[in-house]
Amino acid sequence: MLELRNVESPEDIRNLSVSELESLAEEIRTKIIQTVSKTGGHLAASLGTVELTLALHSVFDTPRDKIVWDVGHQTYAHKLITGRYDRFNTLRTLGGISGFPKRAESLYDVYDTGHASGSISFALGHAKARDLESEEYSVVAVIGDGAMTSGIAYEGLNNAGELGIPLIVILNDNSMSISKNIGGIAQYLTLLRLAPAYRSAKAVVEKMLDHMPNVGASTISWLRRFKGSLKCFLLPEAWFEALGFRYYGPVDGHDIGRLKKVLTEARSLREPVFIHAVTQKGRGYSFAVEHPEKFHGPGPFNAQTGEIIKTPGPPTYSQVFGKALSKFAEDNPKIVAITAAMADGTGLKPFREKFPERFFDVGIAESHAVTFAAGLAQGGMVPVVCIYSTFLQRAYDQIIEDVCLQNLKVIFAVDRAGIAGQDGETHHGQFDLSYLRHIPGLTVMAPKDEKELVNMLWTALNIAGPSAIRYSRGCGTGVPTGDAMAKPEALKLGEPEVISSGKHINILALGSMVHPAIEASQRLAREGISAGVMNARFVVPFDPGTAVSLAQEAPVLVVEENVQDGGFGELVVNAAGHLGHGIHKMALPKTFIQHGSQSELRSIYGLDVSGIVARVNKILA
Amino acid sequence: MLELRNVESPEDIRNLSVSELESLAEEIRTKIIQTVSKTGGHLAASLGTVELTLALHSVFDTPRDKIVWDVGHQTYAHKLITGRYDRFNTLRTLGGISGFPKRAESLYDVYDTGHASGSISFALGHAKARDLESEEYSVVAVIGDGAMTSGIAYEGLNNAGELGIPLIVILNDNSMSISKNIGGIAQYLTLLRLAPAYRSAKAVVEKMLDHMPNVGASTISWLRRFKGSLKCFLLPEAWFEALGFRYYGPVDGHDIGRLKKVLTEARSLREPVFIHAVTQKGRGYSFAVEHPEKFHGPGPFNAQTGEIIKTPGPPTYSQVFGKALSKFAEDNPKIVAITAAMADGTGLKPFREKFPERFFDVGIAESHAVTFAAGLAQGGMVPVVCIYSTFLQRAYDQIIEDVCLQNLKVIFAVDRAGIAGQDGETHHGQFDLSYLRHIPGLTVMAPKDEKELVNMLWTALNIAGPSAIRYSRGCGTGVPTGDAMAKPEALKLGEPEVISSGKHINILALGSMVHPAIEASQRLAREGISAGVMNARFVVPFDPGTAVSLAQEAPVLVVEENVQDGGFGELVVNAAGHLGHGIHKMALPKTFIQHGSQSELRSIYGLDVSGIVARVNKILA
Repeated sequence: MLELRNVESPEDIRNLSVSELESLAEEIRTKIIQTVSKTGGHLAASLGTVELTLALHSVFDTPRDKIVWDVGHQTYAHKLITGRYDRFNTLRTLGGISGFPKRAESLYDVYDTGHASGSISFALGHAKARDLESEEYSVVAVIGDGAMTSGIAYEGLNNAGELGIPLIVILNDNSMSISKNIGGIAQYLTLLRLAPAYRSAKAVVEKMLDHMPNVGASTISWLRRFKGSLKCFLLPEAWFEALGFRYYGPVDGHDIGRLKKVLTEARSLREPVFIHAVTQKGRGYSFAVEHPEKFHGPGPFNAQTGEIIKTPGPPTYSQVFGKALSKFAEDNPKIVAITAAMADGTGLKPFREKFPERFFDVGIAESHAVTFAAGLAQGGMVPVVCIYSTFLQRAYDQIIEDVCLQNLKVIFAVDRAGIAGQDGETHHGQFDLSYLRHIPGLTVMAPKDEKELVNMLWTALNIAGPSAIRYSRGCGTGVPTGDAMAKPEALKLGEPEVISSGKHINILALGSMVHPAIEASQRLAREGISAGVMNARFVVPFDPGTAVSLAQEAPVLVVEENVQDGGFGELVVNAAGHLGHGIHKMALPKTFIQHGSQSELRSIYGLDVSGIVARVNKILA
Repeated sequence: MLELRNVESPEDIRNLSVSELESLAEEIRTKIIQTVSKTGGHLAASLGTVELTLALHSVFDTPRDKIVWDVGHQTYAHKLITGRYDRFNTLRTLGGISGFPKRAESLYDVYDTGHASGSISFALGHAKARDLESEEYSVVAVIGDGAMTSGIAYEGLNNAGELGIPLIVILNDNSMSISKNIGGIAQYLTLLRLAPAYRSAKAVVEKMLDHMPNVGASTISWLRRFKGSLKCFLLPEAWFEALGFRYYGPVDGHDIGRLKKVLTEARSLREPVFIHAVTQKGRGYSFAVEHPEKFHGPGPFNAQTGEIIKTPGPPTYSQVFGKALSKFAEDNPKIVAITAAMADGTGLKPFREKFPERFFDVGIAESHAVTFAAGLAQGGMVPVVCIYSTFLQRAYDQIIEDVCLQNLKVIFAVDRAGIAGQDGETHHGQFDLSYLRHIPGLTVMAPKDEKELVNMLWTALNIAGPSAIRYSRGCGTGVPTGDAMAKPEALKLGEPEVISSGKHINILALGSMVHPAIEASQRLAREGISAGVMNARFVVPFDPGTAVSLAQEAPVLVVEENVQDGGFGELVVNAAGHLGHGIHKMALPKTFIQHGSQSELRSIYGLDVSGIVARVNKILA
C-alpha cells in the first residue's frame, strides 16, 4: 500500500486503483486536519477537494497538463502529493510553504492566487498560448461556486465560449461560497444540483405546456407523461452549450471512479468542456461539515473536539466596527451595510441579525458592491461598504466613477489594511492609501485604536461626501469603546492629534503605527531622546501646516503601514516642501510581501517599536 | 403638432399619439445629426434609442421614476426632451452640455456615467433604497448588449435576481457593442434575436431528440413536427427566470406603440423584469446604419455626404502604436494583442488584419483582458494589452495580482492618458501614473513623441517583466517613425534624455509635456531665461540621481499630465529629498475635469507652453 509520505509526485498515484486512491484520500484528510489544527488555514475548502485533486492528478499528465486552481485555498491535497509533504507542517508560517499556489514553490503550481474568480480567464489565456505554439497539453480550471458570482468568471466563461478552444472548466460546487449562496446564479445551480435530470427536464416541459395554447389534449397528456421520464439534463446543457461549452454534470465530487471517467472523457475531447462537480465543504471532518463557515479559515483548533483555540485578547477592529455600526444604525434608519462574501470577517454578523433588511451580502462581487452602494446613496440611504483592503482593489474604478465622481455619501470600511498575516502576498492590504488618496473628493482616515475607529465612523457619517476608514486585521488595543459608542465624537477634518511634542524628533504616525510610535518614544526617552508623537488621523484632507510646523522644530519621521510609493509619507514630504530639518519615512517597501504572522512581518520591515527606535537613532546619529 | 423646440419636459409628450411621437422622433433624429455633424459625438448609439427614449418618458413618470442609462452615450434624445434643446448645440464643448448624463445638468439624469455596465447595479441600489424608504417609483436600467459582456453587469443581474425587488432592465440590443459582438453571451443573444420563437424552441427540441434513446419512432416524429410549430420563447425565459427575472422579448425597439405597451405592463408588475429590445445602431441615418463603427463616436462630418471631416495632421499615437506593433510582430511570433472593444480606437486594426490569430478583442471586459493576458504570458506568449487609461482602472486588481505578483511579461499600452477631450470627466486618463507607479515590478514609461513610443514598445519587448507605456489621445508630433520601426532602439531603463541644460531652471518633463517644455524653454530664452529641459522617459524605474543633480544646480520644475497626487512630481520630490534649489510641480489638480478640447483643457490647467512659461517666471520671480 502506497503511503502518503512516499508520494513524491503525481506520477506515483497514476497506477493506483480507485480503492487505493480512496485510502490515500483518507490519509491526506488526516494530514490536513492535523496540520491545520496547528497552523490554522483554509480547512473546509481543502477537505472538500481531496478526491477531485486525486482524480485530476491521476487522469492528467501534470505538470505537463496544467491545473489552474481558482483562489487556491483548496490546494492542500494538491500540495501534499506534489512534493511538499515534508514541508507541509510549515504551512502559512514565515519562510514555510504558502497557503496558496506559488509557482516559486512547485512546477505543479501554474497560477499564484489568493483573489477569487480569475482562473477561467487565466486558463483560457494559457490554453490559447498552447494552441498558438502548436503544443499539446490540457488546461483545467477548477473554480468554486462562490467564485462564480464574480464578474470576471463570467467574462472568462463568455470569452472561452467564443474562442471555442479546448479547455476544461470544473465547477467545484459545494453550494456555499465563503458564507452562503448568493444570487440568481446560485439558485440556478441549486436547480441543477437537486435531482437534476428530473427537475430540469420537468421545468422545461412545464414551460412548454404553459406556452402551447394550440396543442391538443392528447399531446399535452403525452407531454405530462414524458416529463416524468425524461432523463437528460436539458436546461443546463442548453445554457452552457449556448455559451459554447459541452456540459457534464452534476458529478459526485467525492466519487473518484466516476470523476476519473468524466475527466478522461473531457480530456479526450478537443473543445470547451464544463464539468459540474458537487462536493461537500469540510468533507470527512464532522465539525467542518457541520460548521463550514467556522472552518473556512480557522486559526489553530483542537482536532479532537473541533474547538477553536481562542487566543486571549481584546475584540478585533472588525468586531468593534460591526458593533459601532449596529449601534449607530439604531438611531439612523438610513444606514445600510454591504459586504462581498465577508459578513463574518468584517464583523457585520451582529448588524445582519439586527437589521436583516438593511444588510446586503452580494457575494464575491466587489465591483457590484460599490456601484450598488452608489445607487443606494443616490436613493437616499447611507451605505457602508465593508471590504478588505486587498479585495477593494477590484472596485477601484467604481470608487472613482460611481461614488466619488458623483460625490455620493458612501462610507468604505477598509478592513485588513496593512500586513494581513499568514495568508500572505495576495491578502496584505498594502496598497489602499496609494490607490485611494488621489481620488478627488474622498476623505481617508486611519484610527490609532478601536475607540478612534468608532469616532471615525461617526465622523464619516457626518461628512457629506464619500469617505474611507482603513484599519488593521486582528485585535485592537483593548481601549474601552463603550463611551465612544454611546457618545461618539466627530473629528475635525484634517486635524491630527498631538500626543506629545519632542525636542529631538517628531514622529507623525498613521493608524496602526501610532501606538508603536508612542511606545518607541517612551523607550527613546529612557535613552535621553525626546521624540514627540503625532497621530495623523487623516490622510485626506491633510493639513500641510502640521508637517511644516513640525519640521521647523526638529526632523520628522512619518510612519505608515502601506507601500511607500504613493503613500502617506510621500504626501507629507510633498506637503511640507523643503522647509525645516528634513522629513524621513518608514513604510512598507515596494515589493510583494510573503506570509507570516503580522508581528513577524512588521518586525522584518521595521514597523514596530524596535524598528522605530532604531530608525530614530539612525536619523539622529 | 408639437414641435421639438417646444418640448420643455417629458410631461409635454405623455399625451401624444404614437404617430405624433413618431413624427417627434424624426425631428429629434434630424436635430441629433445636425448637431453632432458639427460637434462630433456618439451618433449611432443615440440614433438607435430615439423611440425607446420617447416610449420610456411617455410611460414613466420621470423624473419621479428613474431612468438609469448605461454608459450614457445614447442619451441625446433624452437630453433633447428634458429641457436641454436650447443648449444642445453646445454638446461636448467647453462649458456646454456633456455628452453623457450629468446630475448637475438635469433632474432627469440620475447616474453620471461614461464607463459601461454599471447601470444594473446602480439601479438595483436605487430601487432598494426606494423600498427601504417605502417610496413608490419605478427604476429602469437601459443597458446595451455590448455592455452585457462586462462582469459587473452580470454581478448586478445576479444580485437583482436574488433581491427580487421591482426593477426593470431593458437590454438595448443593437447586436454590436463598439466594434462587434463578442463572446458566448452575444451568440446567445443572437439566437434569441433571430426568429426567436422558432429558433429557440427548435434548439430545445433538438436537444431532446438527441437525449432520448429510449423514445419510440412515432414520438420522435411527433417531436419533429412539434419543433416546427412551437411558438414560445422557451430558452430565454428559462434562463432569465432562473436568474429571477420575468422576460419579455424580443421587442422591436423602434416600434413606439409596442414599446409603450410592454413598458406599461412592466411598470405595473412588482417584480424584476427583463425586456429585450432590438434596435438598430445609427437608425434613420443611412451612413451610420451602414458604418455603425465609423459613426460610433465620429468627429465633425458632412451631414449630407456622411464624410468625416478630416482635420489635417500627422498620424495619432494610437495609429503609430498599432503600426509598430504589427511591424515587430512580423519577426516575433510570440507577440499577441488584446483589446477590450477598442480595436479601432487603440490602432489595432492593421494588427488584426495581419495577424487575426494573434488578435483578441474580448469585448467590454477589462478585468478579463488582463488576466487572459497573464495566462497567455504564462503559456509563453508576449501579450500587449491595449486599453484606454480610464478603462484600465477596471483591471487595477488584475494588474497587481495576476500580472505583477507573478512577474509575467505583459505590456500595457495605456492609450488616452492625460486629458482625453470632449468625452469629459469619465474619459480623461488622469489617474494612471498614480495607480500604476506603486505596483511592485511594473516598469512605467511615457514617450515624448511617436518615435519614442516606438522605441518604448521595443524597450518593453526587451524587458523580462511587466511594463506600461502611457501616451496621449490624438495626433503625434509628426516626427518620422520609419527609422525607429525598421531599427528600434531599446532605451536604458530609468535613464532620462537630456535635451538641454539650463542655468536658471531645469524642466523635468514627462511624455506629452516634453515638447511644450522645449517650446517654453525657447520662448524663455528670448526673455533671457536659461531653462534646461530633460525628458524623463521613465516613471519607474526612476533614478533619483537625475533629480538630485538637477536640483543642485538650479530649481527644478516637474511637469506631467496626470493628477498631482501620487503622480510623477511627488515621486521626484521624494527621490530628490531636500537638496538643492527646490523642486516645483505642474500637474492636473485633484479634481474631476470637465469636457472640452484637449488644448482648451490643457490651457486651463497650465499644461502648455504659455502655462509653463508663466510658471517658470513665477518661480524665478
